[in-house]
Amino acid sequence: MASDTVVGNVSVAVNPDLQKERDTGTFDVRELSQLLHGGPEKLMRKRELEHLLFSDPVFQDAERAFKSKEEIYELAVQKSVKLFEWKRRYQWTEEEFDTAVDLTCHDLALSLHHSMFIPGIERLATDEQKAEWLPLALNFKIIGTYAQTELGHGTNLLALETTATFDPMADEFVMNTPKITSMKWWPGGLGKSSTHAIVLAQLVLRGKNYGMHPFIVQLRSLEDHTPMPGITVGDIGPKLALQNIDNGFLMMNNVRIPRTNMLMRNAKVSRDGHFSTSGSSKANYATMILIRVKILSWASSLLVQGATTSIRYSAVRRQSQLKPGGEEMQILSYQSQQYKLFPALAATFAYHFVTKTMTAVYEKAYEEIIGGNNRLLAELHSQSSCLKALLSEETCVFLETQRRSMGGHGYMLMAGGGAYLLSAMTLPTVEGENTVLYQQTARYLMKQVANALSGQQLQGSSSYLTADPGYVCPIKEVNDCRNTRILLDIYRNRAYGIVTGTARKLHADMTSGMEQHVAWNNNMIRLVRAGKVHSQYYAVECFVEGVETANVRPELRTVLHKLCCLYALYGISSNSGDFLETESVTVAQMEMLRMVEHQLLAEIRPDAVSLVDAFDMHDITLHSALGCYDGNVYERLYQSALKEPMNRTQVHPVYYKHLRGLLKGSTLSKL
Amino acid sequence: MASDTVVGNVSVAVNPDLQKERDTGTFDVRELSQLLHGGPEKLMRKRELEHLLFSDPVFQDAERAFKSKEEIYELAVQKSVKLFEWKRRYQWTEEEFDTAVDLTCHDLALSLHHSMFIPGIERLATDEQKAEWLPLALNFKIIGTYAQTELGHGTNLLALETTATFDPMADEFVMNTPKITSMKWWPGGLGKSSTHAIVLAQLVLRGKNYGMHPFIVQLRSLEDHTPMPGITVGDIGPKLALQNIDNGFLMMNNVRIPRTNMLMRNAKVSRDGHFSTSGSSKANYATMILIRVKILSWASSLLVQGATTSIRYSAVRRQSQLKPGGEEMQILSYQSQQYKLFPALAATFAYHFVTKTMTAVYEKAYEEIIGGNNRLLAELHSQSSCLKALLSEETCVFLETQRRSMGGHGYMLMAGGGAYLLSAMTLPTVEGENTVLYQQTARYLMKQVANALSGQQLQGSSSYLTADPGYVCPIKEVNDCRNTRILLDIYRNRAYGIVTGTARKLHADMTSGMEQHVAWNNNMIRLVRAGKVHSQYYAVECFVEGVETANVRPELRTVLHKLCCLYALYGISSNSGDFLETESVTVAQMEMLRMVEHQLLAEIRPDAVSLVDAFDMHDITLHSALGCYDGNVYERLYQSALKEPMNRTQVHPVYYKHLRGLLKGSTLSKL
Repeated sequence: MASDTVVGNVSVAVNPDLQKERDTGTFDVRELSQLLHGGPEKLMRKRELEHLLFSDPVFQDAERAFKSKEEIYELAVQKSVKLFEWKRRYQWTEEEFDTAVDLTCHDLALSLHHSMFIPGIERLATDEQKAEWLPLALNFKIIGTYAQTELGHGTNLLALETTATFDPMADEFVMNTPKITSMKWWPGGLGKSSTHAIVLAQLVLRGKNYGMHPFIVQLRSLEDHTPMPGITVGDIGPKLALQNIDNGFLMMNNVRIPRTNMLMRNAKVSRDGHFSTSGSSKANYATMILIRVKILSWASSLLVQGATTSIRYSAVRRQSQLKPGGEEMQILSYQSQQYKLFPALAATFAYHFVTKTMTAVYEKAYEEIIGGNNRLLAELHSQSSCLKALLSEETCVFLETQRRSMGGHGYMLMAGGGAYLLSAMTLPTVEGENTVLYQQTARYLMKQVANALSGQQLQGSSSYLTADPGYVCPIKEVNDCRNTRILLDIYRNRAYGIVTGTARKLHADMTSGMEQHVAWNNNMIRLVRAGKVHSQYYAVECFVEGVETANVRPELRTVLHKLCCLYALYGISSNSGDFLETESVTVAQMEMLRMVEHQLLAEIRPDAVSLVDAFDMHDITLHSALGCYDGNVYERLYQSALKEPMNRTQVHPVYYKHLRGLLKGSTLSKL
Repeated sequence: MASDTVVGNVSVAVNPDLQKERDTGTFDVRELSQLLHGGPEKLMRKRELEHLLFSDPVFQDAERAFKSKEEIYELAVQKSVKLFEWKRRYQWTEEEFDTAVDLTCHDLALSLHHSMFIPGIERLATDEQKAEWLPLALNFKIIGTYAQTELGHGTNLLALETTATFDPMADEFVMNTPKITSMKWWPGGLGKSSTHAIVLAQLVLRGKNYGMHPFIVQLRSLEDHTPMPGITVGDIGPKLALQNIDNGFLMMNNVRIPRTNMLMRNAKVSRDGHFSTSGSSKANYATMILIRVKILSWASSLLVQGATTSIRYSAVRRQSQLKPGGEEMQILSYQSQQYKLFPALAATFAYHFVTKTMTAVYEKAYEEIIGGNNRLLAELHSQSSCLKALLSEETCVFLETQRRSMGGHGYMLMAGGGAYLLSAMTLPTVEGENTVLYQQTARYLMKQVANALSGQQLQGSSSYLTADPGYVCPIKEVNDCRNTRILLDIYRNRAYGIVTGTARKLHADMTSGMEQHVAWNNNMIRLVRAGKVHSQYYAVECFVEGVETANVRPELRTVLHKLCCLYALYGISSNSGDFLETESVTVAQMEMLRMVEHQLLAEIRPDAVSLVDAFDMHDITLHSALGCYDGNVYERLYQSALKEPMNRTQVHPVYYKHLRGLLKGSTLSKL
C-alpha cells in the first residue's frame, strides 16, 4: 500500500475522516487490488518497481508543477535514459518495462523509439534490413521516431505530400518537402532527440507516384548531433501538456538516402527502379489497432487518478451543513457530490473490464492475422475504433467533473485533477479523431445491417443486428433495475433501434435520389451516434460479463455489482431520450431506473474510499496535494506554495521595476 | 476590421478559401458588428482603443505562449500600470477603461484593486473612512485586494475562521489566523502586489463572536514593500491558467490594526467596545450579483474567441473527401464538423442577448435596492445564479468541442482554443460553485411553487409556475419547428414539468416522514436539474425576444432567427429525454425537430465565417495561429514554432548532458 509514503516534511498521520472511511469499507481492499492488478504476484512486482523508481530523485520529480517546458523535457530524457539502463541492468521483461513506464505516467521523452521506431523496423523491414538496423536501435547507437503526420495532413494518409523520388543513376532516393503543408509535424522525439526517423513519403519512380512507403532517414549527425545537410528540424512549441516529448517538425530539401533505406518488406524498388509488392500485410493494421487498445488503458489510468484524488479529497473536505448548527459536513455526503464522483468511479471499473476484454480480443485476432487469417480484422477494427472514441471522450468529461468537484482548489496545478485532464485531452484527437472513428464503426455497422437484411446470421459484437429483438422492457419494480442482464438488454434494444434506424434513413435518402456521398454527409450526425450507442452497449456488456465471471468473494461481488448497475443506469439517465425514443423503456420505467440510480449513490458511499485505495496509486504517481493517501491536504497545499519560485524573495523584483514607481507617485501624472 | 493586422513577418494575403466564405455571406457584417457592440460609435471607439493598445509591444505580448508564470505576472503588472496611466492621461470614462480591460482579455495583475478593493471601500466604509482611504486607493498610494476565502472555507462564509479580537486597552483589533485552514487563500493580487487588503474576519468582543465583518489590514510596508510584522504572505503557486494574477495566501499572527480600520458602514464597534448595526444593506448582495452578471459576459467573450478561431480554421483546413478522387474538402462542409461548431456559434448570440437582458434587469433592480426597495432582489439573485452556472458550464463544453474540432493542432497552445478553455475553466467554481448556484435557484423555485399552490399569482421569470399550462405541443409539420414561440413554449412546459415534479417529490418525501434536510439531500440531483432547466428556458426566452425586438434589416433578421432556432433545437435534441418525459414533445415531433436542426446547419454554413467576423475580434486578442483573420494558418504555426526556446540552438544542451552518453555507449552496460 501507499500508506508509508512520505512527501517532503509533511506529517504522515492519516486524516481521521479519511481513516474512518477506510474503516467502514465492506470488502477486502487487498482482494480487489489483486484482481485489478492481475493477481498477487503482479501487484507485488508493481510495488517493488515503484519502490525502485520512487527512491530515485529523478522519478520523484518533486518540483514538477514549477518546471518550464524545457526543464520537463530535460528531466524526461533523463528518465528515459535511466529506464533503459535499468531495463538492461535488472534484465526486466517487456511487461516489467511497461509497468515501469506506466508508473512514470508516460512522462518520458524517448518513448517513440520503443513504441514506434523499433516495432516499425520489425514489421516493415526485410530480414536483411532488420539485421542492419535493429542492433543499432536496440543498443541506442541511434535514436529513432516515426514521421507520418504532416502540417496539412493527418487523418487522410493518402494525401500526404512528402516525396521520395528514385534517382537510378545514384541508386538513391531524394527526399523532399514540396510545400509548407508537407512539413512533418507532431512526431514525438523528432524535434531535438532523434537521430533517425522512419519517414512516410510518396514513392516516385520515373515521374509516377507509387503511393505511401516508409523510408529510414538520418536526421542528425552521429558525431555531434547537428542536423544532416538538407534537414531542417526542431520542436513545434508548447502544447497543453506532454511537454516531456519534443514533438517536432521536419523539412527535407533534396536529402539523399540509399535505395536500401526504403523499408521493403511489403514493397520493393529494385536496383533498376522496378517496383513490386510482396503481398499486402494486414499486420500493419493490427499495430495501429494495438495503439488504440493501449489508449483504452491510458484513459483508464488517468481516470483512476482523477477518481482517487477527488474521492479522497471529498472525504476530507468539510463544507456547509444541511441542518443549521452542528459540524460542517464532509462533502462526500452530499448527493450532488456523489453524483459527480461515483459514476466516474463506476466507469473506472467498466474500463478495467473493457480493456481486459479488448486486449484478449486483440491478442486472439492478432494470432490469426499473422497466421494469414483476417476473419476477425473488420470486427477488431470496428470495436477498437468506437471504444477508443468512447473511453477517451467519457474520460475527459469525468476528469473535468472530478476537477470541479474539488471546488476552487481544483484549479490549482497541485490539485492534480487539471494535470490529468490536460494529459487526457490529447486522447480524443490522437491516433484517429473520435468523430472519424465513430463513423468507421458506423460504416461497419451499416454493412452488417445490410448483411442481416440479406439473410446472413451475424457474428461477434454486432450479432444483435441480425433480427428485431421484438423487445419489451420487463421492468416492473425497482428491484428489476438492479438486474444487470435486464439493463444490458435495454442497451441492446437502444443500439438496435438507433443503428437500424440510421441504416433506414440512409437507405431512404439514397432511394430518393441522393448520391451516396451526399447521403452519408447528410446523416453524419446520426452515424456518429450509431457508432457511439453501439460502443456503449459493448462497454456495459464487458462490465456485466466481467463481474459475472470474476472469481471473488461475495462481499466484493456485491460491491462490483452495484458499480456495474450504477454505470449502466447513469448511461441510461444521461441519454434518456435515446432509450425513450427507441421504446427501450417507458417514462414510468425511466423514473424507476432514476430512483435506483440515486439509491446506489448512498449505497456506494461507505466503500468509495476503499474502492479507489484498491487501485493502489502511489502518491508520487498522483502528484496531488488534495489526493494524497494520508489526506493532509491543507498542509501539502501550503508546503507546495512555499516552493513557488515567486516566493523566493519576500519582495518580488516586479516591485522595483514597476510597482514602486506607481506607489511612490512617479509613474502617473497627477490628478 | 482586423483585416489590416500583421503579425510578425507573415503574409497578409487572405487565404482564398476564407475569402470565398466572406464573399458568400447573406447579410451586412457591419450592421451586425454595430448591433453586437452597442452601436456604430461604440464599435468605432473599441477600434480606436484597440489601435492604441496593440501599437504597444507590452500589449502585443507576442511571446505569450513561451512565458513562464513569473514572466506572465511581470508583464501583467506592466499592463496594469500602463492602463492606469492611460486612463488618467486620456481621461477615459469607466466604460472606456472596461473596454480596454476586455481587450487585454483581463490579462492584468492588479484587477482586484479596481474591481473589489475600491468598490469594497465604497460600499462598506463610513463617509469618514471613505475620505481617508479612497484618495489613497484612487491615487495608487496603496494597492488593495479583498481577502475573504480561506484554505478550508469558500462557499460557506459563516464558517470562516480568521478572527479580529478587540483590545479595548489599545483601541485596536488583533487579527489572527488560528489554524492552517483559516489561512486566506486565493485572493488575487494578495501574493506579491498588494499593500493592503479588506480582510473578512470573525469579530470577537469580550470573548463573544459577532460574526463576519470587514477590516482594512496593511500587508506590506509602504517604504520598501516588505511584509508587515506578523504578516506571512505569498503566492499560492501555479494554476491551470490566470498566471497573470498573484493569487495569494495570508497568515496573521497578532497583527494589530486601529479600531477605525474596521469598515463600519453596516456595523460599528465603539471606543468602549460596544457593538451596533446600522441597518442591513442589501447593496452588498447586489455587488456579489453584479460579479455573476459580469461572468456572463466573460464567458460569452471566451466563447466568441473559440467560435472565431475554430470556424475560420475549419474553412481553411481541407481533409479527406466524401467522393473518392477530387480535391480534399473544407472540413467546414462536413455535417459532423458543423454540429461541433454551429450550436456554439448560435450560443454566442444567445449569450449576447442573455447578458444584455440580465444587465438591464440588474440595473433596474439595483436602482430600486439602493432606494431601499428589495422587491426584485430574490428574483435577481435566482436568475443571476442559474445563468452564471449555465453559461459557464456550457461555455466550457463548447470550448472543448471547438478545440477538438481543430484536430491534433488544437492541442497546441498556439491554436488558441486550449488557452480560452483553461481561462474559462475557472468560471464554474468561482463566485459561487455551479451546483450550489443551481440549488439556490431551485430553493427560490420551490418557494414559488408553494406560493402558487397557495393561490398567489407569480411575477417575473417564474410566473409560468402559477398554473399547469395544460400544454399540447402544436408541431404538425417541419415548418412549425422554426417557430421560435412554439420552441419557447416547449421549453416552458419542460421547465414547468420538471420544477413542479421536483417540488412534488420533495413534498412527498417530507410527508412520508423524512426530515427536511434529509429530503433536500435525497433530491439534490433533481433540484440541480430544476435550476438548470429553468435557466435554459430563460436563456431561450432572452434570445427569442432579443431577435424579435432587434432593429435590423430583414437579411440579418433571417440569419439571427436561424441561429435562435438552432440554439433552441440543439438544447432540445441534446436533452431529449427531459422533453419526452414531460410530454413537451412526442417521439414523432422529436424526429421532426431533429431534422430541422440538421437542415439549419447547412443553411447557416454560408454565413458562418461572416458571423464570427462580425464580433470583430482582433488577431492579438485571439492570439491564435489557426484563427487569424487572414487564414494563413500553416505559415503562422511554423513562424511560432521558430520562436520556441528549445529551438535556440540546433543541438539542445540535453544532448551533451544525457543523449551523447547513451548514443556513444558510455551510459549503458553492454548487452
